[in-house]
Amino acid sequence: MGKTELREVSTGNCRVLLESVPLGRLAFVHDGLPVIRPVNFTVAEDAIYLRAGRNSWADRISGQPVTFEVDGYDRADRTGWSVIVTGIATLATDIETVAGQLGNDLRSWAPPPRDRLLRIAIGRIDGRLIAHPGESGTTE
Amino acid sequence: MGKTELREVSTGNCRVLLESVPLGRLAFVHDGLPVIRPVNFTVAEDAIYLRAGRNSWADRISGQPVTFEVDGYDRADRTGWSVIVTGIATLATDIETVAGQLGNDLRSWAPPPRDRLLRIAIGRIDGRLIAHPGESGTTE
Repeated sequence: MGKTELREVSTGNCRVLLESVPLGRLAFVHDGLPVIRPVNFTVAEDAIYLRAGRNSWADRISGQPVTFEVDGYDRADRTGWSVIVTGIATLATDIETVAGQLGNDLRSWAPPPRDRLLRIAIGRIDGRLIAHPGESGTTE
Repeated sequence: MGKTELREVSTGNCRVLLESVPLGRLAFVHDGLPVIRPVNFTVAEDAIYLRAGRNSWADRISGQPVTFEVDGYDRADRTGWSVIVTGIATLATDIETVAGQLGNDLRSWAPPPRDRLLRIAIGRIDGRLIAHPGESGTTE
């Protein structure tokens, strides 16, 4: 396979990569322990939106700092990229308005009910990719 | 696409799914904040092994509870699965011995040096899948 190298991804390309996949992983702290949940999401302006069930983890993390990760990889080539967003999660109270603006992209693959809408304000976005020298990486 | 349903995955199938992918996401708590790192890994008996660089997060989380996630999905079908492992991370001190036993699978895609070996004892393993009713799900 040859050597690989690690590169930073520009903020603009982080946004492109973030919007290129339908599934991400949300991490938060609960009772001092790290929790991860895979979730469908939509990006709109400076926030990530995702649906969750009532009485779920979504109710517990409103107001809390969270981390959101997306990635892609080529198993045969042993290369890949990842984008990590950190920000504050808040439960949206005007679900119908936001859902109407965002459209069908907001639907979760999981079965209903998904009557919570969580908004993660994008505070910081960072990306890295592993590529072979001289090659552009998975999507850049 | 039709309706989907959410199902629990048996422990045995969680193991099969966990070993079916080359990349997972490690979550841990640092200064009270949730952190995620995508990592290559190997499963051996009751532990997950992964490589990390010196002076990296790996040095900080030894002895700490961590969560490790793997998943797979079918974008067109809007289905997928995830497996989540929780356990305690420890830095292996006998890297050469463990690496010798585990073989080349232990190599990270990231460039060297990756001279830390982290062992996550599998304390708990849970899996869920989203599938269409009557269908078996992505890999079961």
